[in-house]
Amino acid sequence: MARTIIGVMGAGDNATAADIERAAELGELIARRGWTLLTGGRNAGVMQAASKSAKESGGLVIGILPGNSTDGMSEFVDIPIITGMGSARNNINVLSSKVVIACGIGAGTASEIGLALKAKRPVVLLGYSREASEFFVSLNSELVTVVSSAVDAIEAVLSILEKEIAGEWKRPTRPASSKTD
Amino acid sequence: MARTIIGVMGAGDNATAADIERAAELGELIARRGWTLLTGGRNAGVMQAASKSAKESGGLVIGILPGNSTDGMSEFVDIPIITGMGSARNNINVLSSKVVIACGIGAGTASEIGLALKAKRPVVLLGYSREASEFFVSLNSELVTVVSSAVDAIEAVLSILEKEIAGEWKRPTRPASSKTD
Amino acid sequence: MARTIIGVMGAGDNATAADIERAAELGELIARRGWTLLTGGRNAGVMQAASKSAKESGGLVIGILPGNSTDGMSEFVDIPIITGMGSARNNINVLSSKVVIACGIGAGTASEIGLALKAKRPVVLLGYSREASEFFVSLNSELVTVVSSAVDAIEAVLSILEKEIAGEWKRPTRPASSKTD
Amino acid sequence: MARTIIGVMGAGDNATAADIERAAELGELIARRGWTLLTGGRNAGVMQAASKSAKESGGLVIGILPGNSTDGMSEFVDIPIITGMGSARNNINVLSSKVVIACGIGAGTASEIGLALKAKRPVVLLGYSREASEFFVSLNSELVTVVSSAVDAIEAVLSILEKEIAGEWKRPTRPASSKTD
Repeated sequence: MARTIIGVMGAGDNATAADIERAAELGELIARRGWTLLTGGRNAGVMQAASKSAKESGGLVIGILPGNSTDGMSEFVDIPIITGMGSARNNINVLSSKVVIACGIGAGTASEIGLALKAKRPVVLLGYSREASEFFVSLNSELVTVVSSAVDAIEAVLSILEKEIAGEWKRPTRPASSKTD
Repeated sequence: MARTIIGVMGAGDNATAADIERAAELGELIARRGWTLLTGGRNAGVMQAASKSAKESGGLVIGILPGNSTDGMSEFVDIPIITGMGSARNNINVLSSKVVIACGIGAGTASEIGLALKAKRPVVLLGYSREASEFFVSLNSELVTVVSSAVDAIEAVLSILEKEIAGEWKRPTRPASSKTD
Repeated sequence: MARTIIGVMGAGDNATAADIERAAELGELIARRGWTLLTGGRNAGVMQAASKSAKESGGLVIGILPGNSTDGMSEFVDIPIITGMGSARNNINVLSSKVVIACGIGAGTASEIGLALKAKRPVVLLGYSREASEFFVSLNSELVTVVSSAVDAIEAVLSILEKEIAGEWKRPTRPASSKTD
Repeated sequence: MARTIIGVMGAGDNATAADIERAAELGELIARRGWTLLTGGRNAGVMQAASKSAKESGGLVIGILPGNSTDGMSEFVDIPIITGMGSARNNINVLSSKVVIACGIGAGTASEIGLALKAKRPVVLLGYSREASEFFVSLNSELVTVVSSAVDAIEAVLSILEKEIAGEWKRPTRPASSKTD
């Protein structure tokens, strides 16, 4: 059985203190559940905070790196995936995550939410303004869950995974990427 | 001198009638300016409408296709670029466009706006609700222009290109993609 | 009708004088046929020589660039496609070419021949040693043609295109990329 | 400290019985060394055999999948990375591997060897004909090692890693992918 990979997406250098605090909570909670954390892999902001706490809580950490080497990688990444494809790797981040938690917002994170919804991946928005939440809910109300704490984000992930295991929700095996834009 | 490539991004099968009408206007105006149109290349929605009108107005049309072949391609595409990489090709769409015009909204288009802002490409939003406009302006107020007609979108593109030629605005040669997420 | 795109692949900085001479001939012959040239877009070696001669012979030139900008691009490229994905763009080079002409050899070119054969694209080898030719023919004898002059390379391309138009050869619409490695 | 990832590349459906036997040996030896196995992730040929034996020997297995889902994935993959980018994912395979072992040959594997050498990754060729070995050695004699058994392949990997740790060999942090083709 493949591990259950949960993605945490968020800003690097522009992350807020609140984003970073929530990311640290997410990393710990994901590791304690026995899930595997996936981030963009860099040693900055949300990626670094989530990776550090997941690793220190005994978890396994995947980093999907944008560059050609491990330069700038978080030292808490166990599995560095070197893509060399810049922001196009954002699509790999979301395709590889059973559920995507967006922790804070920025241009890169916005692209990841869009790509996740396009590929029919469930997205949990953590710490979003009402306006931003409403915008993403308007893109796909079924796939987007809005929460305001890391604990609630993990509950939302758990609920999605349980529904899927119970057969109450079916993940599309072939996303509509070749059909709609 | 390389051609001036202007990207028009928008929904395929879920495009609204208003989006499609505006896309047709954009295609014609882009062709008449002597610019080259770039879209996601599919024979649906905004991509099809913009490609058709650009082609019929004597323009050159590039299609950046998500699949492994030209299946489903607009018959008005002159230059099919076959990427075989699904929605990750959205990053190529925006990197290759001098200016990105987003015509209507959907998950894929939202990802393209995010990727464009991440790569420091100027984005013109056409036909957006106040809420959606404000969200994207909040991500990068310098790079986002909000307009309500195709004519105004083309004026905005022209203004950006003229500022760049005059040296009043400088396009970053190395986007921050390896630095922030 | 989309243009007929012919790819010319070959070394950049390590191209030999013979490779560069052949690339210049290829560019001219491709342009005179009314085909569109596709290369990796850089201002070096085979890419530069083919682009220059195609452009000077009135042809249209596509450059599929590995970086995030047009830095290092051949000044003879009309259509710069900026991929930002390094050598992974080699797959786009071959998917987008009706026929791939490999002009000289190097690590990048070897990867393009492999990717082309994997995607069932016809490949013409120009100026290869007997050993290298035999190696690639052993990978797929049906798709590989070995020639020793630019004129013969163009004849081989013409023959492939004519067979395809005549229905004597059918291009797979769905390459086996998801089935074999 | 990130895990030491060793890639095993080889054919899927067209793998020979000898390739599959060697792949099974490689998987076991990689796992016993405490290294992490990376393959193309499919449930066929070399990928399946290496993944199965690594997993059964207590190792961790990464699969870099070409499609949009886990359909067709080896059941022995622990970490499925879903790329949705077809054969362009071959570049991720080699960038993410400290050393690439090519076990048998095919079009996809040939592309991976080319991409590895382009990115300056060491490659160990296992079970290659003299002609094929000579061809790849001619592309980069420093980076290619030719062996004839799985045990020797693992010894070659060990030697490369030890030289790197001892500072006798330095891995380029910035591959020349943007400079040469």
